Amino acid sequence: MRFTSEQRLDDGILERGFALGDIPGILWTPGSASAPAPLILLGHPGGLHTMYPRLVARARDAAAEGFAAAAIELPWSGERPRSVAVDGARADLRRALQVGRPSDEIVDRLVLPVVEQAVPEWRAALDALLALPGIGGPVGYSGGVISIGIRLAVVEPRISAALLFAGSFVPRSMFEEARKVTVPLQVLLQWDDEGNDRRSALEVFDAFGSREKTLHANMGGHAGVPWFEGEAANRFFARHLK
Amino acid sequence: MRFTSEQRLDDGILERGFALGDIPGILWTPGSASAPAPLILLGHPGGLHTMYPRLVARARDAAAEGFAAAAIELPWSGERPRSVAVDGARADLRRALQVGRPSDEIVDRLVLPVVEQAVPEWRAALDALLALPGIGGPVGYSGGVISIGIRLAVVEPRISAALLFAGSFVPRSMFEEARKVTVPLQVLLQWDDEGNDRRSALEVFDAFGSREKTLHANMGGHAGVPWFEGEAANRFFARHLK
Repeated sequence: MRFTSEQRLDDGILERGFALGDIPGILWTPGSASAPAPLILLGHPGGLHTMYPRLVARARDAAAEGFAAAAIELPWSGERPRSVAVDGARADLRRALQVGRPSDEIVDRLVLPVVEQAVPEWRAALDALLALPGIGGPVGYSGGVISIGIRLAVVEPRISAALLFAGSFVPRSMFEEARKVTVPLQVLLQWDDEGNDRRSALEVFDAFGSREKTLHANMGGHAGVPWFEGEAANRFFARHLK
Repeated sequence: MRFTSEQRLDDGILERGFALGDIPGILWTPGSASAPAPLILLGHPGGLHTMYPRLVARARDAAAEGFAAAAIELPWSGERPRSVAVDGARADLRRALQVGRPSDEIVDRLVLPVVEQAVPEWRAALDALLALPGIGGPVGYSGGVISIGIRLAVVEPRISAALLFAGSFVPRSMFEEARKVTVPLQVLLQWDDEGNDRRSALEVFDAFGSREKTLHANMGGHAGVPWFEGEAANRFFARHLK
């Protein structure tokens, strides 16, 4: 892992671009920290550059609570090499959404390869990030893709709590994996998400094995998560990462 | 309205018993308040004496945020005269729950008379409470019975926000009323509530006409609402009553 850029944001947060092999990433650390900061991995749908404004807003929220935050680019997204197969599945999903709910086959073909590829990359990023001075455990995962969050919560023992954004279609096989999740969860659902299926999101929530799980459902579409959920996320992580 | 008792709780909160005609009630006001305190009406399933420990805990939460809180006894509950019809409906509900979901007829027979009788009483209490020095608007409703909260939010313009506990069966006719609710809502649902129907609770949530509505669903049964929902309630009311 090597740093590729560095800047101070106006509220003292240090923002550093990095490369983990050929995977780009961004790390935000709070301006003043006496002890190593807990780390929140910021999940997103791919495209660090496009997602930057929303990611930095979430990183600022996290820093206000004393948390470091980091994101890496997803496979076949942003500046990383494309995949013909995944691009094809994404186009198929778009076409299917115009006429109704996409088939399980399309969802599997789009999501499962990303999960398979992304989860080991997030774990490698975790190895590198936790080795830095000023970053400690415990670690939270926050955001989408929900299937990546599910797999990470199952296979990565360093994840202590997860705030999952139910804003993407979930392959059927992930429902079984959801039963194996035991860390505290907060699940965000946009009630009228145009790119998601409400019933299936409620089914995933029901499936999770965690004893502490809370669903926060709000009105509006995919991008309409209300600002106060940023505060609620901080309180959730403050309960579990401190 | 006349006060029947008065005591200071250890954190400076003033607790006063009152009688509104023959309806008993309790009012809690914060120890130190510079301006008139917003008021939260604490909804409950009936039985002020039995509910007291939970009500006073919620009143303490509210007072910590500068809110006054009040509860009145429900019709045909606690020390108030009983109703043979409502007692009969309650017994029918208990029997029906032992074998499955109660019929709409039983739910109507139990809930609708209570709503019809209780809502004018809550409004009369509001008249009396808002006339007291130290109590101002705006007003919130917090708790169950959800059907009482729905009717109050529809007919009482002084209710500015409501936190509704989806912990009781809802008559079908209340779904239409729910569409008329427009104040900001936070709806609490216990995912495995033994005295409620999850699907129907989600349907009510869907029906509300409010532009801002948030569902908080947590694991566990009817009485298992986690402590952190007290904090979340305060933040909801702080957004809307201040």
